[in-house]
Amino acid sequence: MGEFELIRNYFAAAPCAQGGEGVALGIGDDCALLAVPPGEQLAVSTDTLVAGVHFPDPCDPFLLGQRSLAVAVSDLAAMGAKPFAFTLALTLPTVTADWLQAYARGLNQMAQACGVALVGGDTTRGPLSLTMTVFGHVPGSQALTRGGAQPGDLLCVGGELGNAAGALALVLGQRHAEPAIAEPLLAHYWSPRPQVALGLALRGKASAAMDISDGLLADCGHIALASGVALQVERDRLPLSNALVAFLGGADATQVALSGGDDYVLLFAVPPSRLPALQAEGWPIHVIGSVLAGQGVTLVDDVGHDITPQIRGYQHFRETP
Amino acid sequence: MGEFELIRNYFAAAPCAQGGEGVALGIGDDCALLAVPPGEQLAVSTDTLVAGVHFPDPCDPFLLGQRSLAVAVSDLAAMGAKPFAFTLALTLPTVTADWLQAYARGLNQMAQACGVALVGGDTTRGPLSLTMTVFGHVPGSQALTRGGAQPGDLLCVGGELGNAAGALALVLGQRHAEPAIAEPLLAHYWSPRPQVALGLALRGKASAAMDISDGLLADCGHIALASGVALQVERDRLPLSNALVAFLGGADATQVALSGGDDYVLLFAVPPSRLPALQAEGWPIHVIGSVLAGQGVTLVDDVGHDITPQIRGYQHFRETP
Repeated sequence: MGEFELIRNYFAAAPCAQGGEGVALGIGDDCALLAVPPGEQLAVSTDTLVAGVHFPDPCDPFLLGQRSLAVAVSDLAAMGAKPFAFTLALTLPTVTADWLQAYARGLNQMAQACGVALVGGDTTRGPLSLTMTVFGHVPGSQALTRGGAQPGDLLCVGGELGNAAGALALVLGQRHAEPAIAEPLLAHYWSPRPQVALGLALRGKASAAMDISDGLLADCGHIALASGVALQVERDRLPLSNALVAFLGGADATQVALSGGDDYVLLFAVPPSRLPALQAEGWPIHVIGSVLAGQGVTLVDDVGHDITPQIRGYQHFRETP
Repeated sequence: MGEFELIRNYFAAAPCAQGGEGVALGIGDDCALLAVPPGEQLAVSTDTLVAGVHFPDPCDPFLLGQRSLAVAVSDLAAMGAKPFAFTLALTLPTVTADWLQAYARGLNQMAQACGVALVGGDTTRGPLSLTMTVFGHVPGSQALTRGGAQPGDLLCVGGELGNAAGALALVLGQRHAEPAIAEPLLAHYWSPRPQVALGLALRGKASAAMDISDGLLADCGHIALASGVALQVERDRLPLSNALVAFLGGADATQVALSGGDDYVLLFAVPPSRLPALQAEGWPIHVIGSVLAGQGVTLVDDVGHDITPQIRGYQHFRETP
C-alpha cells in the first residue's frame, strides 16, 4: 500500500469522517451520496489555500487544519445555509505522520464545531495546497444572496473587523506583542469562527449578505454591484477590538478594518424594521452604515464628509459595472 | 481589478457557466445553489490533478481542459449518477491569455459532452494544479456502489483496456508511432469519454460498479474488498484495441490492460440473467471474468491456470482486509 493510500485510509478513519445527518454514503466509493431535505437546495462553495500565498510555509498544521475548514464554511454561513459535509483535496510534498496527525486534529476540531462530516476528497503529491468544497442546505427562497439590498436598509456586520489582517505581522513573525494583545488577534487569524448561527438567524430577514474575506470595502463593493445600490460606511461606527487598537493605534486599526481581509465576519443589509428583533435575540450586530440609491461604496467621517479618497486603493470601490 | 479577478470573470462568462438543469444559482455569490430532484440523492466526487504528477508539464491546455473534467465525471458515471454541475479550483503560476483561452475551450467542450455546468470554484496563484468537484443525482436505492457483487455474477468492463496507459510513452514524447496507431491511443489519454450513459443503464442491474483509474487488477481489488468476494479475471477475454497491440505487441498490451491506469472505463458485476437485456440494448459490454466466493483477485489463462504471480506487483491484488 502506497503512502498516499495510507493517508486516504487515515482520513477515512478520522472522527469527522464517520458520517452525519444528510450523509447517505461517505468516504470509500467512487462518490459520496448526500441527502438534501425535501424543499431545500444544496449550497456549495470551493476554496483553495496555497502554502506561501494564503498561509505561511511552514506553519502549525493543527492551526492550518482549523483555518482551512473555517474559511470555507464561512461561505455557507454567508448564504444562510446549514453546513453538513465537506470534501478535502490535499496536495502534499512529503508525508510525515506528525504533520498529518496535527492537521487532522485541527480539522476534526473545526469540523465538530461547524457540524460537518468529511465525505470524500483526494490526496496527491505536489507543492502544499488544500482545496475544500463545503456543503450546506437552505430553503431556496431563504438563501442570502448578495443581490437584494434596498435603499433604506441598514448596513451591518456580525463582529469586530480587522483582527485577522492586524495579526498578519504576528503570523509572519515580523512583529511581537504581549500575550493579551497577540493571543486574540492570532486566534482570529488561525481559528476564525464561521458565523453559521447568525446566518441561519438572518434567513428571511437580511436583504443581502456575504462574508468578509477580501476586506470590508472591497466586499461592500461586491454587494453594491450585485444589488445595484450604493453603500455608505461610517468610519466611526466600525467595531474595532481593544487588542487591535492597542497593537496598531487607532488610525492603522481603522485602515485594516476597512481594507484588510480574512475577517470571515458576516456583512449584511437589513431593513430597519427587522433590526430590533434580531438585536433582542442577542446577536452581535453592529450597524456600520446604510444602503442608498446609486452605485459604489463611500466612506464618511463623523460629520458625513466623504473621506473615501484617503483610503489606499480606493478607486477599486468606486467601480461601476 | 487584479489578474485573478479577471480570470474569475472570464470563467463566469464561459458557455459552460451559463447554468443548466438543477442549477438554481451559479457563479458569483458566496455559494452556488443546486436543486436535487425529489427522491434523489446528490453524488459528489473530488479529483486533483497536479502538473508533472498527473499530466506532463508543460502540456496542451486544450487537452488538459478536456481531460481534467472527464476524469472527474467518470466517478459520477461509475455511481450511476446523472452529472449536472461542477466546480473548478485552478491554481496557476502565471496567467497567460492564450493558456487560459485554450484551457477553457477544452473544458467547455467536455462540459457540453457531459451535460455539466460550471457553478463555482476558486482561482489562486501557485504551482499548476486543478481540483474538480463534480455533482450528479441518482435515486438513492439505485446508486452503483462497489459493495454489492455476489458470487455467480459476471465481471464486465465497458470498453477497451490499456489504451491510455499504452499512450503514456507517446504523451511523454519518449516514443513515436504512425498516426493510425498514435491517434486513437492519445485520444483515449487526453479525451476519455466518461461512460455516463452506460452508468445510467446499469442502475438497478449491476450489483457493483466503479471506473477503472488505478488499473484493472487494482480496481478489481477494490470491488473484491468492498463486496467481500473474490474476482477471477480471464486473461484472454481482455478487450484490447488493435492500435494498442500494434504499438506494444500482445504481451505488453495485456500487461498495461491489467496494470496500467487511466482507462476511465466502467468495471462492474452483473447477475448473468440481466446481461442479455443489456447486450440487446447495444452497450459495449465485455465479460472478462466472474465473481466467486472468497477474497482477492486472480488472473487465469485460457485453461484456467492461476497466472497472477506473472503480473508485476501482484501481491497488491492478494491483499486481505
